[in-house]
Amino acid sequence: MVLNGLNTSIIGRAVEKGLLSIEAIDIRDYSTDKHHSVDDYPYGGGAGMVMQPMPICEAYDDLCNKIGKKPRVIYMTPQGTVFNQTIAGELAKEEDLVFLCGHYEGIDERALNLVATDFLSIGDYVLTGGELPAMVMIDCISRLIPGVLKNETSAEFESFHDNLLEYPQYTRPEEYRGLKVPEVLLSGHHKNIDIWRREQSIKRTLERRPDLLEEAVLSKKEVEYLNKLLKELENGE
Amino acid sequence: MVLNGLNTSIIGRAVEKGLLSIEAIDIRDYSTDKHHSVDDYPYGGGAGMVMQPMPICEAYDDLCNKIGKKPRVIYMTPQGTVFNQTIAGELAKEEDLVFLCGHYEGIDERALNLVATDFLSIGDYVLTGGELPAMVMIDCISRLIPGVLKNETSAEFESFHDNLLEYPQYTRPEEYRGLKVPEVLLSGHHKNIDIWRREQSIKRTLERRPDLLEEAVLSKKEVEYLNKLLKELENGE
Repeated sequence: MVLNGLNTSIIGRAVEKGLLSIEAIDIRDYSTDKHHSVDDYPYGGGAGMVMQPMPICEAYDDLCNKIGKKPRVIYMTPQGTVFNQTIAGELAKEEDLVFLCGHYEGIDERALNLVATDFLSIGDYVLTGGELPAMVMIDCISRLIPGVLKNETSAEFESFHDNLLEYPQYTRPEEYRGLKVPEVLLSGHHKNIDIWRREQSIKRTLERRPDLLEEAVLSKKEVEYLNKLLKELENGE
Repeated sequence: MVLNGLNTSIIGRAVEKGLLSIEAIDIRDYSTDKHHSVDDYPYGGGAGMVMQPMPICEAYDDLCNKIGKKPRVIYMTPQGTVFNQTIAGELAKEEDLVFLCGHYEGIDERALNLVATDFLSIGDYVLTGGELPAMVMIDCISRLIPGVLKNETSAEFESFHDNLLEYPQYTRPEEYRGLKVPEVLLSGHHKNIDIWRREQSIKRTLERRPDLLEEAVLSKKEVEYLNKLLKELENGE
Protein backbone atom coordinates (compact mmCIF):
# COMPACT_ATOMS: atom_id res chain seq x y z
CA MET A 1 0.00 0.00 0.00
CA VAL A 2 2.71 2.50 0.99
CA LEU A 3 4.96 1.75 -1.99
CA ASN A 4 2.06 1.68 -4.47
CA GLY A 5 0.74 4.95 -3.16
CA LEU A 6 4.06 6.76 -3.25
CA ASN A 7 5.58 5.33 -6.42
CA THR A 8 3.35 7.45 -8.62
CA SER A 9 3.80 11.15 -9.21
CA ILE A 10 6.46 13.46 -7.80
CA ILE A 11 7.86 11.31 -4.99
CA GLY A 12 8.13 8.30 -7.32
CA ARG A 13 10.16 10.34 -9.77
CA ALA A 14 12.45 11.52 -6.96
CA VAL A 15 13.04 7.89 -5.98
CA GLU A 16 13.87 7.04 -9.62
CA LYS A 17 16.35 9.92 -9.71
CA GLY A 18 18.00 8.55 -6.58
CA LEU A 19 17.18 11.60 -4.45
CA LEU A 20 15.66 9.42 -1.77
CA SER A 21 14.64 5.83 -1.23
CA ILE A 22 11.62 4.33 0.43
CA GLU A 23 11.42 0.82 1.77
CA ALA A 24 8.53 -1.04 3.39
CA ILE A 25 9.07 -3.65 6.09
CA ASP A 26 6.28 -6.15 6.71
CA ILE A 27 6.02 -6.72 10.45
CA ARG A 28 4.37 -10.07 9.67
CA ASP A 29 7.74 -11.36 8.45
CA TYR A 30 8.83 -11.25 12.09
CA SER A 31 5.95 -13.29 13.44
CA THR A 32 6.81 -16.73 14.79
CA ASP A 33 3.18 -17.76 14.54
CA LYS A 34 2.23 -20.16 11.73
CA HIS A 35 -0.58 -17.80 10.67
CA HIS A 36 1.88 -14.87 10.68
CA SER A 37 -0.35 -13.08 13.12
CA VAL A 38 1.14 -10.10 14.96
CA ASP A 39 -1.78 -9.14 17.22
CA ASP A 40 -3.42 -10.54 20.32
CA TYR A 41 -6.19 -9.68 22.81
CA PRO A 42 -5.57 -6.74 25.14
CA TYR A 43 -4.76 -7.48 28.79
CA GLY A 44 -7.52 -6.19 30.98
CA GLY A 45 -10.15 -6.74 28.29
CA GLY A 46 -11.73 -4.37 25.82
CA ALA A 47 -12.62 -4.31 22.15
CA GLY A 48 -10.18 -4.99 19.33
CA MET A 49 -6.69 -6.40 19.10
CA VAL A 50 -3.29 -5.02 20.07
CA MET A 51 -0.04 -5.46 18.12
CA GLN A 52 2.47 -7.58 20.03
CA PRO A 53 5.88 -6.21 21.05
CA MET A 54 8.08 -9.01 19.69
CA PRO A 55 7.68 -8.68 15.89
CA ILE A 56 8.07 -4.89 16.07
CA CYS A 57 11.19 -4.97 18.25
CA GLU A 58 12.83 -7.67 16.13
CA ALA A 59 12.07 -5.80 12.90
CA TYR A 60 13.66 -2.74 14.52
CA ASP A 61 16.77 -4.68 15.63
CA ASP A 62 17.23 -6.02 12.10
CA LEU A 63 16.92 -2.54 10.67
CA CYS A 64 19.44 -1.06 13.12
CA ASN A 65 21.93 -3.78 12.24
CA LYS A 66 21.39 -3.14 8.55
CA ILE A 67 21.94 0.62 8.63
CA GLY A 68 24.48 0.50 11.45
CA LYS A 69 22.74 2.98 13.74
CA LYS A 70 19.59 3.71 15.70
CA PRO A 71 17.34 5.82 13.49
CA ARG A 72 14.55 8.12 14.58
CA VAL A 73 11.37 6.07 14.76
CA ILE A 74 8.14 8.00 14.33
CA TYR A 75 5.00 6.38 15.67
CA MET A 76 1.89 7.78 14.04
CA THR A 77 -0.86 8.18 16.60
CA PRO A 78 -3.72 10.63 17.17
CA GLN A 79 -2.10 10.94 20.60
CA GLY A 80 1.07 12.52 19.25
CA THR A 81 2.23 16.07 18.71
CA VAL A 82 0.38 17.49 15.70
CA PHE A 83 2.61 17.38 12.60
CA ASN A 84 3.20 20.66 10.79
CA GLN A 85 5.46 22.30 8.23
CA THR A 86 8.10 23.19 10.84
CA ILE A 87 8.39 19.57 12.00
CA ALA A 88 8.54 18.48 8.34
CA GLY A 89 11.50 20.83 7.78
CA GLU A 90 13.30 19.44 10.81
CA LEU A 91 12.71 15.80 9.76
CA ALA A 92 13.87 16.56 6.20
CA LYS A 93 17.39 17.02 7.60
CA GLU A 94 17.57 13.43 8.89
CA GLU A 95 19.50 10.80 6.93
CA ASP A 96 17.16 7.96 7.93
CA LEU A 97 13.58 8.00 9.16
CA VAL A 98 11.45 5.07 10.25
CA PHE A 99 7.65 5.32 10.31
CA LEU A 100 6.04 2.74 12.58
CA CYS A 101 2.48 2.11 11.43
CA GLY A 102 0.01 0.91 14.02
CA HIS A 103 -3.18 -1.00 13.37
CA TYR A 104 -6.19 -2.25 15.30
CA GLU A 105 -6.36 -0.78 18.80
CA GLY A 106 -2.68 0.15 18.69
CA ILE A 107 0.69 -1.24 19.69
CA ASP A 108 1.78 -2.81 22.97
CA GLU A 109 3.09 0.06 25.09
CA ARG A 110 6.39 -1.72 25.76
CA ALA A 111 7.25 -1.87 22.05
CA LEU A 112 6.68 1.89 21.87
CA ASN A 113 8.89 2.44 24.91
CA LEU A 114 11.63 0.32 23.33
CA VAL A 115 11.71 1.67 19.77
CA ALA A 116 9.70 4.89 19.21
CA THR A 117 11.53 8.23 19.45
CA ASP A 118 8.75 10.54 18.18
CA PHE A 119 4.97 10.46 18.56
CA LEU A 120 3.28 12.40 15.79
CA SER A 121 -0.29 12.88 14.64
CA ILE A 122 -1.34 14.24 11.25
CA GLY A 123 -4.52 15.68 12.77
CA ASP A 124 -7.37 15.24 15.23
CA TYR A 125 -9.09 12.36 13.47
CA VAL A 126 -8.95 8.58 13.61
CA LEU A 127 -7.88 6.35 10.73
CA THR A 128 -7.85 2.56 10.19
CA GLY A 129 -4.03 2.38 10.36
CA GLY A 130 -0.76 4.26 10.31
CA GLU A 131 0.01 3.74 6.63
CA LEU A 132 -1.81 6.83 5.28
CA PRO A 133 -0.30 9.13 7.94
CA ALA A 134 3.13 7.70 7.08
CA MET A 135 2.52 8.40 3.38
CA VAL A 136 1.39 11.94 4.16
CA MET A 137 4.51 12.66 6.22
CA ILE A 138 6.82 11.04 3.66
CA ASP A 139 5.25 13.14 0.88
CA CYS A 140 5.47 16.36 2.89
CA ILE A 141 9.07 15.76 4.03
CA SER A 142 10.32 14.45 0.67
CA ARG A 143 9.23 17.50 -1.28
CA LEU A 144 11.52 19.63 0.91
CA ILE A 145 14.60 17.69 -0.23
CA PRO A 146 16.49 19.78 -2.82
CA GLY A 147 15.81 18.58 -6.36
CA VAL A 148 12.54 16.78 -5.63
CA LEU A 149 10.34 19.64 -6.82
CA LYS A 150 11.00 20.75 -10.40
CA ASN A 151 10.74 24.35 -9.47
CA GLU A 152 12.82 25.13 -6.40
CA THR A 153 10.81 28.26 -5.70
CA SER A 154 7.59 26.25 -5.55
CA ALA A 155 8.34 25.01 -2.05
CA GLU A 156 8.74 28.58 -0.86
CA PHE A 157 6.09 30.69 -2.56
CA GLU A 158 3.01 28.85 -1.57
CA SER A 159 0.65 28.22 1.29
CA PHE A 160 1.92 29.50 4.64
CA HIS A 161 4.46 31.91 3.18
CA ASP A 162 4.66 34.66 5.83
CA ASN A 163 1.91 32.70 7.62
CA LEU A 164 -0.65 33.81 5.01
CA LEU A 165 -2.82 31.63 2.79
CA GLU A 166 -2.02 31.66 -0.89
CA TYR A 167 -3.72 34.11 -3.27
CA PRO A 168 -6.18 32.83 -5.93
CA GLN A 169 -4.62 31.47 -9.11
CA TYR A 170 -5.89 31.85 -12.70
CA THR A 171 -4.82 30.36 -16.01
CA ARG A 172 -6.25 30.23 -19.54
CA PRO A 173 -8.81 30.83 -20.89
CA GLU A 174 -9.28 34.51 -20.06
CA GLU A 175 -13.01 33.96 -19.79
CA TYR A 176 -14.72 30.72 -18.80
CA ARG A 177 -18.47 30.27 -18.39
CA GLY A 178 -18.81 34.02 -18.05
CA LEU A 179 -16.14 34.29 -15.35
CA LYS A 180 -13.17 36.52 -16.18
CA VAL A 181 -9.61 36.58 -14.94
CA PRO A 182 -9.12 39.70 -12.75
CA GLU A 183 -7.88 42.61 -14.92
CA VAL A 184 -4.79 43.32 -12.87
CA LEU A 185 -3.33 39.89 -13.69
CA LEU A 186 -3.53 40.68 -17.43
CA SER A 187 -1.98 44.14 -17.00
CA GLY A 188 1.66 43.07 -17.01
CA HIS A 189 2.21 45.62 -14.22
CA HIS A 190 4.26 43.49 -11.83
CA LYS A 191 4.15 45.80 -8.86
CA ASN A 192 0.34 46.05 -8.96
CA ILE A 193 0.10 42.29 -9.38
CA ASP A 194 2.25 41.78 -6.30
CA ILE A 195 0.14 44.21 -4.25
CA TRP A 196 -3.11 42.60 -5.42
CA ARG A 197 -1.88 39.11 -4.61
CA ARG A 198 -0.70 40.06 -1.14
CA GLU A 199 -4.02 41.77 -0.42
CA GLN A 200 -5.91 38.69 -1.62
CA SER A 201 -3.76 36.55 0.68
CA ILE A 202 -4.48 38.78 3.65
CA LYS A 203 -8.22 38.88 2.88
CA ARG A 204 -8.43 35.14 2.43
CA THR A 205 -6.49 34.44 5.62
CA LEU A 206 -8.81 36.76 7.53
CA GLU A 207 -11.87 35.00 6.10
CA ARG A 208 -10.74 31.40 6.41
CA ARG A 209 -7.96 31.12 8.97
CA PRO A 210 -7.88 34.26 11.15
CA ASP A 211 -5.86 32.26 13.70
CA LEU A 212 -2.86 32.45 11.34
CA LEU A 213 -2.85 36.26 11.21
CA GLU A 214 -1.33 36.67 14.66
CA GLU A 215 1.99 35.34 13.36
CA ALA A 216 1.73 36.84 9.86
CA VAL A 217 4.61 38.91 8.51
CA LEU A 218 3.07 42.14 7.14
CA SER A 219 4.45 45.44 5.89
CA LYS A 220 3.19 48.72 7.36
CA LYS A 221 0.92 49.25 4.32
CA GLU A 222 -0.42 45.71 4.63
CA VAL A 223 -1.24 46.23 8.30
CA GLU A 224 -3.26 49.28 7.22
CA TYR A 225 -5.06 47.15 4.60
CA LEU A 226 -5.87 44.52 7.24
CA ASN A 227 -7.19 47.19 9.61
CA LYS A 228 -9.40 48.52 6.82
CA LEU A 229 -10.81 45.01 6.26
CA LEU A 230 -11.40 44.56 9.99
CA LYS A 231 -13.24 47.89 10.15
CA GLU A 232 -15.42 46.89 7.17
CA LEU A 233 -16.17 43.60 8.88
CA GLU A 234 -17.13 45.45 12.06
CA ASN A 235 -19.50 47.69 10.12
CA GLY A 236 -21.05 44.58 8.57
CA GLU A 237 -19.93 45.42 5.05
CA MET B 1 -2.89 5.87 -6.72
CA VAL B 2 -6.12 6.46 -4.79
CA LEU B 3 -7.67 3.11 -5.70
CA ASN B 4 -4.43 1.17 -5.10
CA GLY B 5 -3.96 2.82 -1.74
CA LEU B 6 -7.49 2.22 -0.53
CA ASN B 7 -8.18 -1.22 -1.98
CA THR B 8 -6.01 -2.91 0.62
CA SER B 9 -7.01 -3.43 4.23
CA ILE B 10 -10.22 -2.43 5.94
CA ILE B 11 -11.69 0.00 3.40
CA GLY B 12 -11.03 -2.45 0.55
CA ARG B 13 -12.94 -5.15 2.41
CA ALA B 14 -15.85 -2.75 2.97
CA VAL B 15 -15.92 -2.05 -0.78
CA GLU B 16 -15.96 -5.80 -1.48
CA LYS B 17 -18.86 -6.22 0.94
CA GLY B 18 -20.75 -3.49 -0.92
CA LEU B 19 -20.88 -1.14 2.07
CA LEU B 20 -19.45 1.69 0.00
CA SER B 21 -17.91 2.25 -3.40
CA ILE B 22 -14.98 4.38 -4.47
CA GLU B 23 -14.40 5.60 -7.99
CA ALA B 24 -11.54 7.63 -9.42
CA ILE B 25 -12.07 10.09 -12.27
CA ASP B 26 -9.03 11.11 -14.29
CA ILE B 27 -9.31 14.81 -15.08
CA ARG B 28 -6.99 14.23 -18.05
CA ASP B 29 -9.81 12.35 -19.81
CA TYR B 30 -11.51 15.75 -20.12
CA SER B 31 -8.59 17.52 -21.73
CA THR B 32 -9.05 18.57 -25.37
CA ASP B 33 -5.31 18.94 -25.73
CA LYS B 34 -3.48 16.26 -27.74
CA HIS B 35 -1.00 15.80 -24.87
CA HIS B 36 -3.91 15.48 -22.41
CA SER B 37 -2.46 18.36 -20.44
CA VAL B 38 -4.75 20.00 -17.88
CA ASP B 39 -2.47 22.77 -16.61
CA ASP B 40 -1.15 26.06 -17.93
CA TYR B 41 0.95 29.04 -16.79
CA PRO B 42 -0.57 31.33 -14.16
CA TYR B 43 -1.85 34.74 -15.27
CA GLY B 44 0.23 37.44 -13.66
CA GLY B 45 3.33 35.25 -13.59
CA GLY B 46 4.87 33.19 -10.82
CA ALA B 47 6.35 29.74 -10.37
CA GLY B 48 4.59 26.52 -11.24
CA MET B 49 1.51 25.62 -13.22
CA VAL B 50 -2.21 26.00 -12.50
CA MET B 51 -4.96 23.49 -13.34
CA GLN B 52 -7.35 24.84 -15.98
CA PRO B 53 -11.07 25.27 -15.28
CA MET B 54 -12.47 23.45 -18.30
CA PRO B 55 -11.49 19.79 -17.65
CA ILE B 56 -12.56 20.04 -14.01
CA CYS B 57 -15.95 21.61 -14.76
CA GLU B 58 -16.71 19.14 -17.55
CA ALA B 59 -15.75 16.17 -15.37
CA TYR B 60 -18.10 17.60 -12.74
CA ASP B 61 -20.97 18.05 -15.24
CA ASP B 62 -20.57 14.46 -16.39
CA LEU B 63 -20.63 13.23 -12.81
CA CYS B 64 -23.77 15.25 -11.96
CA ASN B 65 -25.55 13.82 -14.99
CA LYS B 66 -24.51 10.32 -14.02
CA ILE B 67 -25.74 10.45 -10.43
CA GLY B 68 -28.66 12.76 -11.15
CA LYS B 69 -27.80 15.43 -8.62
CA LYS B 70 -25.20 17.94 -7.48
CA PRO B 71 -23.04 16.25 -4.87
CA ARG B 72 -20.90 17.90 -2.20
CA VAL B 73 -17.49 18.58 -3.71
CA ILE B 74 -14.63 18.80 -1.24
CA TYR B 75 -11.54 20.63 -2.39
CA MET B 76 -8.49 19.63 -0.36
CA THR B 77 -6.32 22.65 0.31
CA PRO B 78 -4.09 23.81 3.16
CA GLN B 79 -6.30 26.90 2.95
CA GLY B 80 -9.43 25.07 4.07
CA THR B 81 -11.09 24.46 7.41
CA VAL B 82 -9.03 21.91 9.32
CA PHE B 83 -10.66 18.47 9.03
CA ASN B 84 -11.51 16.71 12.31
CA GLN B 85 -13.56 13.85 13.70
CA THR B 86 -16.72 15.97 13.95
CA ILE B 87 -16.54 16.93 10.26
CA ALA B 88 -15.89 13.25 9.43
CA GLY B 89 -19.07 12.26 11.27
CA GLU B 90 -21.07 14.86 9.39
CA LEU B 91 -19.69 13.80 5.98
CA ALA B 92 -20.33 10.11 6.78
CA LYS B 93 -24.07 10.89 6.54
CA GLU B 94 -23.83 11.99 2.89
CA GLU B 95 -24.88 9.62 0.11
CA ASP B 96 -22.29 10.90 -2.35
CA LEU B 97 -19.03 12.75 -1.79
CA VAL B 98 -16.63 14.08 -4.39
CA PHE B 99 -13.01 14.83 -3.53
CA LEU B 100 -11.37 17.25 -5.93
CA CYS B 101 -7.61 16.74 -5.88
CA GLY B 102 -5.44 19.69 -6.79
CA HIS B 103 -1.90 19.54 -8.09
CA TYR B 104 0.90 21.93 -8.97
CA GLU B 105 0.22 25.46 -7.73
CA GLY B 106 -3.48 24.72 -7.42
CA ILE B 107 -6.68 25.05 -9.43
CA ASP B 108 -8.02 28.03 -11.38
CA GLU B 109 -10.16 29.98 -8.92
CA ARG B 110 -13.15 29.99 -11.28
CA ALA B 111 -13.33 26.18 -11.30
CA LEU B 112 -13.41 26.25 -7.50
CA ASN B 113 -16.18 28.86 -7.54
CA LEU B 114 -18.18 26.75 -9.98
CA VAL B 115 -17.89 23.28 -8.42
CA ALA B 116 -16.43 23.21 -4.88
CA THR B 117 -18.83 23.25 -1.93
CA ASP B 118 -16.34 22.58 0.91
CA PHE B 119 -12.72 23.62 1.43
CA LEU B 120 -10.96 21.27 3.82
CA SER B 121 -7.39 20.80 4.97
CA ILE B 122 -6.04 17.71 6.71
CA GLY B 123 -3.48 19.84 8.57
CA ASP B 124 -1.05 22.75 8.44
CA TYR B 125 1.44 21.22 6.04
CA VAL B 126 1.95 21.19 2.29
CA LEU B 127 1.81 18.07 0.10
CA THR B 128 2.53 17.40 -3.57
CA GLY B 129 -1.16 16.89 -4.41
CA GLY B 130 -4.66 16.31 -3.13
CA GLU B 131 -4.68 12.52 -3.50
CA LEU B 132 -3.24 11.65 -0.08
CA PRO B 133 -5.56 14.08 1.76
CA ALA B 134 -8.50 12.57 -0.18
CA MET B 135 -7.41 9.07 0.86
CA VAL B 136 -7.06 10.18 4.49
CA MET B 137 -10.57 11.67 4.52
CA ILE B 138 -12.08 8.68 2.71
CA ASP B 139 -10.46 6.31 5.23
CA CYS B 140 -11.60 8.37 8.22
CA ILE B 141 -15.16 8.82 6.95
CA SER B 142 -15.58 5.24 5.67
CA ARG B 143 -14.74 3.64 9.00
CA LEU B 144 -17.71 5.47 10.55
CA ILE B 145 -20.14 3.70 8.21
CA PRO B 146 -21.94 0.91 10.11
CA GLY B 147 -20.45 -2.51 9.30
CA VAL B 148 -17.09 -1.27 8.03
CA LEU B 149 -15.27 -1.94 11.29
CA LYS B 150 -15.47 -5.52 12.52
CA ASN B 151 -16.04 -4.43 16.03
CA GLU B 152 -18.72 -1.76 16.22
CA THR B 153 -17.49 -0.59 19.60
CA SER B 154 -14.03 0.06 18.18
CA ALA B 155 -15.10 3.33 16.60
CA GLU B 156 -16.36 4.57 19.94
CA PHE B 157 -13.90 3.44 22.60
CA GLU B 158 -10.74 4.91 21.25
CA SER B 159 -8.80 8.10 20.86
CA PHE B 160 -10.84 11.21 21.66
CA HIS B 161 -13.49 9.43 23.68
CA ASP B 162 -14.61 12.09 26.19
CA ASN B 163 -11.88 14.27 24.61
CA LEU B 164 -9.17 12.21 26.31
CA LEU B 165 -6.30 10.33 24.69
CA GLU B 166 -6.45 6.56 24.83
CA TYR B 167 -4.84 4.62 27.68
CA PRO B 168 -1.79 2.40 27.01
CA GLN B 169 -2.52 -1.06 25.62
CA TYR B 170 -0.76 -4.33 26.44
CA THR B 171 -0.96 -7.82 25.02
CA ARG B 172 1.04 -11.06 25.36
CA PRO B 173 3.65 -11.91 26.51
CA GLU B 174 3.30 -10.89 30.14
CA GLU B 175 6.98 -9.98 30.24
CA TYR B 176 9.05 -8.82 27.25
CA ARG B 177 12.68 -7.77 27.43
CA GLY B 178 12.29 -7.24 31.16
CA LEU B 179 9.19 -5.07 30.79
CA LYS B 180 6.05 -6.31 32.53
CA VAL B 181 2.38 -5.72 31.88
CA PRO B 182 0.96 -3.53 34.73
CA GLU B 183 -0.39 -5.79 37.51
CA VAL B 184 -3.86 -4.30 37.56
CA LEU B 185 -4.51 -5.49 33.99
CA LEU B 186 -3.84 -9.10 35.06
CA SER B 187 -6.03 -8.82 38.16
CA GLY B 188 -9.36 -9.51 36.49
CA HIS B 189 -10.82 -6.78 38.70
CA HIS B 190 -12.82 -4.86 36.12
CA LYS B 191 -13.62 -1.85 38.22
CA ASN B 192 -9.97 -1.28 39.11
CA ILE B 193 -8.98 -1.77 35.47
CA ASP B 194 -11.49 0.88 34.40
CA ILE B 195 -10.25 3.34 37.02
CA TRP B 196 -6.60 2.71 36.07
CA ARG B 197 -7.31 3.17 32.36
CA ARG B 198 -9.20 6.40 32.87
CA GLU B 199 -6.40 7.76 35.06
CA GLN B 200 -3.82 6.81 32.43
CA SER B 201 -5.91 8.60 29.80
CA ILE B 202 -6.12 11.73 31.93
CA LYS B 203 -2.38 11.64 32.73
CA ARG B 204 -1.43 11.11 29.10
CA THR B 205 -3.72 13.87 27.88
CA LEU B 206 -2.21 16.24 30.43
CA GLU B 207 1.31 15.31 29.30
CA ARG B 208 0.81 15.29 25.54
CA ARG B 209 -2.27 17.30 24.63
CA PRO B 210 -3.27 19.54 27.57
CA ASP B 211 -5.30 21.63 25.09
CA LEU B 212 -7.85 18.78 24.93
CA LEU B 213 -8.51 18.79 28.68
CA GLU B 214 -10.64 21.91 28.61
CA GLU B 215 -13.40 20.00 26.82
CA ALA B 216 -12.82 16.67 28.56
CA VAL B 217 -15.76 14.90 30.21
CA LEU B 218 -14.62 13.95 33.73
CA SER B 219 -16.34 12.59 36.82
CA LYS B 220 -15.92 14.38 40.14
CA LYS B 221 -13.32 11.81 41.27
CA GLU B 222 -11.45 12.24 37.99
CA VAL B 223 -11.36 16.01 38.39
CA GLU B 224 -9.77 15.40 41.81
CA TYR B 225 -7.20 13.08 40.19
CA LEU B 226 -6.40 15.72 37.56
CA ASN B 227 -5.98 18.38 40.25
CA LYS B 228 -3.60 16.07 42.12
CA LEU B 229 -1.52 15.65 38.94
CA LEU B 230 -1.50 19.40 38.35
CA LYS B 231 -0.32 20.01 41.92
CA GLU B 232 2.46 17.43 41.50
CA LEU B 233 3.51 19.12 38.27
CA GLU B 234 3.57 22.49 40.02
CA ASN B 235 5.81 21.06 42.75
CA GLY B 236 8.13 19.70 40.05
CA GLU B 237 7.49 16.05 40.92
